Amino acid sequence: MKPYKELSKNELLTMKAALEEEYKTMEAKGLKLNMARGKPGFTQLDLCEPMLDIINSASDMKTMMGNDTRNYGDLDGIGECRQLMADMMSVEKNNVIVCGNSSLNVMYDTVSRSFTHGVNGYTPWFKLDKVKFLCPVPGYDRHFSITEAFGIEMINIPLYDNGPDMDMVEEYVNNDPAVKGIWCVPKYSNPTGISYSDETVKRFAALKPAAEDFRIYWDNAYCIHHLYEDTQDEILNILDECEKAGNPNMVYIFSSTSKISFPGSGVSAIASSKENIDYILSRMTIQTIGHDKINQLRHARFFKDIHGLNAHMKKHAELLRPKFAAVLDALDAEIEGLEIGTWIKPRGGYFISFNSMPGCAKAIVSMCKDLGVVMTGAGATFPYGKDPEDSNIRIAPTFPSVEEMEVAAKVFVLCVKLVSVNKLLSEM
Amino acid sequence: MKPYKELSKNELLTMKAALEEEYKTMEAKGLKLNMARGKPGFTQLDLCEPMLDIINSASDMKTMMGNDTRNYGDLDGIGECRQLMADMMSVEKNNVIVCGNSSLNVMYDTVSRSFTHGVNGYTPWFKLDKVKFLCPVPGYDRHFSITEAFGIEMINIPLYDNGPDMDMVEEYVNNDPAVKGIWCVPKYSNPTGISYSDETVKRFAALKPAAEDFRIYWDNAYCIHHLYEDTQDEILNILDECEKAGNPNMVYIFSSTSKISFPGSGVSAIASSKENIDYILSRMTIQTIGHDKINQLRHARFFKDIHGLNAHMKKHAELLRPKFAAVLDALDAEIEGLEIGTWIKPRGGYFISFNSMPGCAKAIVSMCKDLGVVMTGAGATFPYGKDPEDSNIRIAPTFPSVEEMEVAAKVFVLCVKLVSVNKLLSEM
Repeated sequence: MKPYKELSKNELLTMKAALEEEYKTMEAKGLKLNMARGKPGFTQLDLCEPMLDIINSASDMKTMMGNDTRNYGDLDGIGECRQLMADMMSVEKNNVIVCGNSSLNVMYDTVSRSFTHGVNGYTPWFKLDKVKFLCPVPGYDRHFSITEAFGIEMINIPLYDNGPDMDMVEEYVNNDPAVKGIWCVPKYSNPTGISYSDETVKRFAALKPAAEDFRIYWDNAYCIHHLYEDTQDEILNILDECEKAGNPNMVYIFSSTSKISFPGSGVSAIASSKENIDYILSRMTIQTIGHDKINQLRHARFFKDIHGLNAHMKKHAELLRPKFAAVLDALDAEIEGLEIGTWIKPRGGYFISFNSMPGCAKAIVSMCKDLGVVMTGAGATFPYGKDPEDSNIRIAPTFPSVEEMEVAAKVFVLCVKLVSVNKLLSEM
Repeated sequence: MKPYKELSKNELLTMKAALEEEYKTMEAKGLKLNMARGKPGFTQLDLCEPMLDIINSASDMKTMMGNDTRNYGDLDGIGECRQLMADMMSVEKNNVIVCGNSSLNVMYDTVSRSFTHGVNGYTPWFKLDKVKFLCPVPGYDRHFSITEAFGIEMINIPLYDNGPDMDMVEEYVNNDPAVKGIWCVPKYSNPTGISYSDETVKRFAALKPAAEDFRIYWDNAYCIHHLYEDTQDEILNILDECEKAGNPNMVYIFSSTSKISFPGSGVSAIASSKENIDYILSRMTIQTIGHDKINQLRHARFFKDIHGLNAHMKKHAELLRPKFAAVLDALDAEIEGLEIGTWIKPRGGYFISFNSMPGCAKAIVSMCKDLGVVMTGAGATFPYGKDPEDSNIRIAPTFPSVEEMEVAAKVFVLCVKLVSVNKLLSEM
């Protein structure tokens, strides 16, 4: 296919007329599809229903250590669930606290606690004139909402195929004591799907932060969320690397089973050095008497161990591959070669990230919405909702059915084409 | 029995010798009993085990509104669980957010949010020189831990049989703009077991706070936790009374099923005016995508409605009455008339509050511990853990069995007597 940029005005006008016909046909269908958020589809949820039978009135409700999960206790989580989450996060059990149903909540609490009480006894952030976070972009909107809510200045860091621009990260972290954190989704990144290279992880671990309370907020949300069996990303263990590099306390790792068992009814966890974990527990004991241990037991007994988790995720992958393919096939067939957009084919995670021509993303998302296909708001993948290029669009293909996804993909490529043609015409 | 104070030195010495003999006998038993915390006994937990069968793989997982509880959504809780908690808290469904597993966590978050972001847009507390909370004493140690953690100055307010000293409350709240809150357990108070009179509630509602962001932190933890069928405390509806008095936004009500279903695996809720609820939701949406809706569904379907909750609590009462009786009977039989302690016979809740002679509480709790009976630390019922009289002891009779409670009560009265005799002798 010929790149749109090489088309004459007349060719573009002909193209526009054809696309507008297609638009009318699509409009007439009165679609109502939602791919705004990274929600599991119901077929994924169905797979986990047997978990609901695992704990019943005939169950032994005691942990392996003999504690009654029905009563208060075990602030850091029951042993067997700590082990499960530790294995999932590739850390030791003693480095893990199993928390409530939401890793986002754990991240919020971690930032909030640093704001109100400081990191491990360092000056609480509310007493500082300025706190800054580095934000690899495009990134996860809900991370950015947390730091924005606390008045933390967010600095965009380009995210490349092997991770954030580490020259920039080093420059900021090693020189500016106001830089207290960086948001990372190191594996199957939200939204681009890339994973950090070994060199990236090693450079992270070797940072020499100007601020002693600088921490890496390592949201390993998609640690076992592979799409394929043969091509899987693996990332270096950041906790080990930090330890080796003499920065044992520099990272907080977050994860959850929200996209493994049930969103809202899963278990989340934070992993870090013993020193960090002990500090967090010393504050957490004021916040709560403990998290939902029956649900922890439910998860530990259902998945049994990391092999059980991986086997479960293989079934997810089977359900998700055709949904991702529906989008990627449409992009390959319809957009490839037109030079009106780029995208990465992810090997895992929950998203496909599409970059339109600059200045087109908002218009594409808006046109999709007019046709009944709701997508993540353009700009959402950047701090303050501001994509300086107005280019990045996050596609979340997990929730609709394969058939719906095929239709949604058709709508999407149509809108990309039409908006691009309009853009090129407006510049002539 | 003759009051100890009227005994001669010789009589006291004879008494002391006899008590010390009894002490040795008790010591030889090598007891190991814990009545430190308000934990349900396992027989109470057993009663709720059928709840674990209610949601299983054959269940319809949709709410009455048709939402899938297995997926993200319903930040304010599923409708049927909001209705259940609303009825339990005697408020309207629209005034309720159903939260996670811990009302303590909701209270912590409410204070934390006020510290970081302010109450409904008023100045965040971290920007203020001084924030004060009123603390009716004796009260709940975990309330005091929260305000202490945020550097909030706590002011003791005497708690009488019909509620806090309202003259003092009015004096502080209506004149000092630094007073931002008061911790209340209005029904079957922790630890004294008293309930606020109608006049007390009306005087609360009629406060004219100097601070616009003053709120009453109304922890209605024991709202349906009656011990008897015939003599039950009822309190006025604070939300209605505040509305009537022209202070619609002045109260946050907290509650949970922690001591109804399973501690750690129950559901909690906050109730307040629509304006307050909307503000809280506007912040909560940054903190989490939602709470555990499957567990909300489990609770809604198991208890069905307020009648189901009340029927369940009647069974709890049957299990708890003999445990409370074991303590109260021992106090009546052994301490009554000696003028070495006072106590209130509660009609509900989780505690019996005992006031020793001044200067004896720490010694009594310590002596009980030496005999293998762990109680709540003396002083814990006061801010900063400091009981100015060293007099108040919280007895938590719910966790041990009736037989254990009878033994623990014997240990307790022995220690009260021995410490009191020692005290009187030391003053001679």
